[in-house]
Amino acid sequence: MPVETLKWIDQGLVIIDQRLLPSKEKYLLLNSTEDVCAAIRTLAVRGAPAIGVAAAYGVVLAALEKPDEEYVRSSINKLKETRPTAVNLFHALNIMEKHLDDAFDSDDPVAVFLEVAEGIRENDLRICRELSEHGARLLSDGDTVLTHCNAGGLATSGYGTAVGIVYAAKEEGKHIGVYADETRPLFQGGRLTAWELAKNGIEVTVICDSMAAEVLRQGKINHVIVGADRIAANGDSANKIGTYGISIAAREHGVPFYVAAPLTSFDFSLKSGNEIPIEERDSIEIYRAWGLTSAPDRVSFYNPAFDVTPAQNIAAIISEKGIARPPFDPVLESWRIDSCHEKIL
Amino acid sequence: MPVETLKWIDQGLVIIDQRLLPSKEKYLLLNSTEDVCAAIRTLAVRGAPAIGVAAAYGVVLAALEKPDEEYVRSSINKLKETRPTAVNLFHALNIMEKHLDDAFDSDDPVAVFLEVAEGIRENDLRICRELSEHGARLLSDGDTVLTHCNAGGLATSGYGTAVGIVYAAKEEGKHIGVYADETRPLFQGGRLTAWELAKNGIEVTVICDSMAAEVLRQGKINHVIVGADRIAANGDSANKIGTYGISIAAREHGVPFYVAAPLTSFDFSLKSGNEIPIEERDSIEIYRAWGLTSAPDRVSFYNPAFDVTPAQNIAAIISEKGIARPPFDPVLESWRIDSCHEKIL
Repeated sequence: MPVETLKWIDQGLVIIDQRLLPSKEKYLLLNSTEDVCAAIRTLAVRGAPAIGVAAAYGVVLAALEKPDEEYVRSSINKLKETRPTAVNLFHALNIMEKHLDDAFDSDDPVAVFLEVAEGIRENDLRICRELSEHGARLLSDGDTVLTHCNAGGLATSGYGTAVGIVYAAKEEGKHIGVYADETRPLFQGGRLTAWELAKNGIEVTVICDSMAAEVLRQGKINHVIVGADRIAANGDSANKIGTYGISIAAREHGVPFYVAAPLTSFDFSLKSGNEIPIEERDSIEIYRAWGLTSAPDRVSFYNPAFDVTPAQNIAAIISEKGIARPPFDPVLESWRIDSCHEKIL
Repeated sequence: MPVETLKWIDQGLVIIDQRLLPSKEKYLLLNSTEDVCAAIRTLAVRGAPAIGVAAAYGVVLAALEKPDEEYVRSSINKLKETRPTAVNLFHALNIMEKHLDDAFDSDDPVAVFLEVAEGIRENDLRICRELSEHGARLLSDGDTVLTHCNAGGLATSGYGTAVGIVYAAKEEGKHIGVYADETRPLFQGGRLTAWELAKNGIEVTVICDSMAAEVLRQGKINHVIVGADRIAANGDSANKIGTYGISIAAREHGVPFYVAAPLTSFDFSLKSGNEIPIEERDSIEIYRAWGLTSAPDRVSFYNPAFDVTPAQNIAAIISEKGIARPPFDPVLESWRIDSCHEKIL
């Protein structure tokens, strides 16, 4: 596994603190629901699939704190309020919620919740690996991939989605280079993607987000691959702010733009990306991240954390079900129906 | 004048240290050619027109150090090596070089060089104001402008080009709002443009570079206006890295994209932007600007300081001669011929 993002031990949930990378590799022990909420809100754990998994363990911690159905239910609601865009959070918490009755009918509610949470984590590892193997078919030996933000091991239970595809291609013996957008304001590309790729022996070049169009123009990139926080039924995909601009530049230069995400990142209840709630975060992230004063604090700021790339800018959507090409609606509908017949847990 | 960027006093050239803004408003006294070279190389003074003016004073300082024609000539060559992209540097130094004979034929070479340098500065102020007045005709009351990097007072002798247009529109009584891209890696938009706009009472919203496409999609922007470091005879315009990507996104959303620069930023000897030399700067600017560790230092970096926006993405080029619309070649050629008949100094 490329990264150990999060792991349950007897005392609680251990996560790698993603706010401190790459300067420090420090692990945090979360042993209350509130710890998990804070870790999600402050991005100590981030990435749509990883947020979902962490939240599931947050429910286990609630049951440990107080084995009471109403208490656990209210803890689930608190966890749902931490971040609005990644739908994986809601998917995972809805699964946990469905087990409230079983858990409290049993002798050991904590054991029931823990089994479900472990299942969610194992499922994430499995589907990330499956989607990565599908995606790797799109890459040829010697290709260079541009990615944005971090859709790697750190964004999931450990394998990754967009970056997982690069890991899978490497396992197949292909030599793949990566350009990583640093991803302002919080540098998830520079800090996290570059860190985990280097750790796993993959050649990575970090650029500022503003350099992506120029790098595409220079013909350095064969494929753009990004993750997603929420994909609507028509293929419109919300992902880290900046993704949309790259999709336009990629189209301008005839470079295929792919979105890689497990079905846990799909929201079939939304017809289009217009319905996806976009989180707006505190402007301090822009003007004083890590103590850096990069703007006067008396001016205005606008800090949307995500944008939506319209389906028409996307050449393929890759999930554990395979590779969808436009028009996406019928393929995504078949994936939806397929997934209804599966009982993840 | 919106900003006092640089000013000659008896002891030398005083500049505002643009590396420290907005945290500190500190002035530096440069009293040797080497001081001026270092200030240009390290971006204590930056912006194509301001670099040219500062370099002219650097020649005065050379003559003060050693009133010897060969010494001054070699100092001019040192100044030419500080930065490669902004053509204003070479224009200004070529003017100074033309006065070598007059200066050393006179009783007071320093006085001759100083008069020429002061003339270059005053000319810059005049032409920036003229181009800004032309550009202001494009703006209506209530408009919002997106700009990138800093093409304001700080980038010139004090009035600005792209941002000068906003100042001129304000002087005409129009209320103009500005979105300023922060402009990684060195935050000239967040640190400098936001600082000088706020200081001059203009409403400014700072965004990360990656947010520009989304802000354009939301319909918040009426005009994109940027400066230029070098414009080729066909209108292709080199400007701070990131400009090219914005030009693509602006076209995608039908928002006109303007380049504002005085003729001192034009290089009529180059047929197209392909011939413009693009500076590549130290990668430490990306991973450790201002002490911030934003990427592991053992990975690769690519740090081009500029990119070229092709003429077809530009709706208008604004200079002190007026407003050019595509096709640019004939208008720019008429500006060239016109400028040959003028004797700036």
